[in-house]
Amino acid sequence: MIPPQNGVGGSTSTAGLSRSERLARLPLREELRGQEPYGAPQLPVWAMLNVNETTYDVPADVVDAITKEVRHAAQTLNRYPDREFTRLREKLAEYLAHGLTAEHIWAANGSNEIMQHILQAFAGPGRSVMAFPPTYSMYPLYARGTYSRYIAGTRGEDFTQGAEDVARQIREHRPDVVILCSPNNPTGTALGLDVVEAAYDAAVEGGTMVVVDEAYGEFRQSGTPSALELLPGRERLIVSRTMSKAFALAGGRLGYLAAAEEVTDALRLVRLPYHLSAITQAAAEAALDHSEALMANVERIKTQRDRIVDTLTRYGLSPAPSDANFVFFGGLEDEKAAWQHLLDDGILIRDVGIPGHLRVTAGTEAETTAFLESLARHLGR
Amino acid sequence: MIPPQNGVGGSTSTAGLSRSERLARLPLREELRGQEPYGAPQLPVWAMLNVNETTYDVPADVVDAITKEVRHAAQTLNRYPDREFTRLREKLAEYLAHGLTAEHIWAANGSNEIMQHILQAFAGPGRSVMAFPPTYSMYPLYARGTYSRYIAGTRGEDFTQGAEDVARQIREHRPDVVILCSPNNPTGTALGLDVVEAAYDAAVEGGTMVVVDEAYGEFRQSGTPSALELLPGRERLIVSRTMSKAFALAGGRLGYLAAAEEVTDALRLVRLPYHLSAITQAAAEAALDHSEALMANVERIKTQRDRIVDTLTRYGLSPAPSDANFVFFGGLEDEKAAWQHLLDDGILIRDVGIPGHLRVTAGTEAETTAFLESLARHLGR
Repeated sequence: MIPPQNGVGGSTSTAGLSRSERLARLPLREELRGQEPYGAPQLPVWAMLNVNETTYDVPADVVDAITKEVRHAAQTLNRYPDREFTRLREKLAEYLAHGLTAEHIWAANGSNEIMQHILQAFAGPGRSVMAFPPTYSMYPLYARGTYSRYIAGTRGEDFTQGAEDVARQIREHRPDVVILCSPNNPTGTALGLDVVEAAYDAAVEGGTMVVVDEAYGEFRQSGTPSALELLPGRERLIVSRTMSKAFALAGGRLGYLAAAEEVTDALRLVRLPYHLSAITQAAAEAALDHSEALMANVERIKTQRDRIVDTLTRYGLSPAPSDANFVFFGGLEDEKAAWQHLLDDGILIRDVGIPGHLRVTAGTEAETTAFLESLARHLGR
Repeated sequence: MIPPQNGVGGSTSTAGLSRSERLARLPLREELRGQEPYGAPQLPVWAMLNVNETTYDVPADVVDAITKEVRHAAQTLNRYPDREFTRLREKLAEYLAHGLTAEHIWAANGSNEIMQHILQAFAGPGRSVMAFPPTYSMYPLYARGTYSRYIAGTRGEDFTQGAEDVARQIREHRPDVVILCSPNNPTGTALGLDVVEAAYDAAVEGGTMVVVDEAYGEFRQSGTPSALELLPGRERLIVSRTMSKAFALAGGRLGYLAAAEEVTDALRLVRLPYHLSAITQAAAEAALDHSEALMANVERIKTQRDRIVDTLTRYGLSPAPSDANFVFFGGLEDEKAAWQHLLDDGILIRDVGIPGHLRVTAGTEAETTAFLESLARHLGR
């Protein structure tokens, strides 16, 4: 029996122990022991181009609209929010179009919680989730958080995915949920619908749910289709989106998805009641009312994204074609030296742990210029 | 292989199937099959006294403060929020006092997510969580959502819990997490610190974490202590609170807890990054800045709560002593008839499924009067 101690968690018997030693004394689950919390470095620099945020300021009329909607919602904050967030689902369906209605929409506190709901319902203990690294680094953590087994599939040497290869891997591993990230983070490239169709056909054979994570969907090159087109008739297909990127609402935490009605019914069984606050709903609705203005910034960002790809090619580097608001590029002799050089110039980009490669968010024209000029100096060009 | 179908989840092969039949065709986890989503009935009546909300309007200066803080936060919503919600933790620590600092505080989207984080870290598959029904009806759902085994302990005939009895049950079942609800929902009675101490001593012997759920802590009778007093030296004790009730912020979704620093480190390992939006943080901070005004309403509510207990006793009913913002009362011949009679009068209270008993939220003076008069008519008094 542990004797009584003094201080809130500090104490006689834990005195002299470090915080991590004290953590180790708690009856934590085994798989969490020795783990570190997830999180990209947050450094206060001039150009933060490391987490694929929209770097344009939130437009003043969007700030006004959010303020107005939240003021309205604040008057009844003593009451629980609309558990069904019906108005928000209606607006999201209207935005996505493709014949979708509120019944096909689900939303949660960021794509993180969207993925958690999906895995709680369709994966979990004794089940598995498959993704194809290098891809979004949170996927294995969603698996861990829901006690699902994570299966790491493979990609081609150039990080692309072919239809036959994806289908073969799904047939081989028979995961309960497969996640296709398109455009893929960190590589930036979108999947053709033929790949998604092949994955889906292989998946339904084995009772697998297919998630196409289109967090960066609004930044697609013209001509690149969305998997939303494939939803009709495919009741095991889920297309997830977020308001963090194109809607410049990373701080608002609103992820959502479109799927068959019965999929949203399944997620309703695992969501914690009232998971979306009244002010989250209000802020997201206000931003959706201004989607046109926000999409104008998307076009500006795409211009800078294409400029980065063109310029890095001229620099002799190897940028991947990008359908996202970032560019993944290889050809660096020492990516850590390049990363540090940029940081010394006040520009924070992302080292995703792939030798010779880095990832940069497409920011404003000024930020892009500063990034390209700094990198040119580093390369001696 | 399932053939291609038409319509978003509607379709050729699912045509004619009901939505629940279509749900049953999905590869849902077995334990979710046939389940219904949780949720209290939401009926638009004059007096909603069924979910223990504060029924007073949010004070105008609190609405103003929330609006102002959210407007400020909205200007940088394009950026991810402070992952560590440091300022909010500081304000919560200041509010709770008891020598607590930000390092002892954790917060999440409602107590629901607080409990989920606790069970993800300390319970989960192969582990168990114990509570003592009749108690908060979400506890078994937190267990289900984290794939933890739920152990239902027992109470005395009058629904109270004795120190020896609680300790004995913990020693017998050795759960990984034990939840003590104090004041208990739906019965309203708080636990003496002797009960919490006895539970804790029995718990630490078996490697058990102890959660005291003080969601209604601010409504305690004067002289009833908080388990916050027991935190020093007890690194396996967690005291959870919410801003939904006393802070009139049910729609804002802000639950929090106080514990040893290493407990918050454990929860940091399971939280989804950026789980608290910038506007949730801003709104909660604004409400905390107005805690004095909001606590004035708490006193008004306690007056009505005591008035309900006194009056129901005079009616010949058996209200439980209450440290909460609601009253649980027995002695009804037909609780369903009483519930319906009140609803016909525009007053919605809660049937918690215990024969002869109902639960009513203490509302404004006018709502309380209407409730008591309607019930008197039903009882023929």
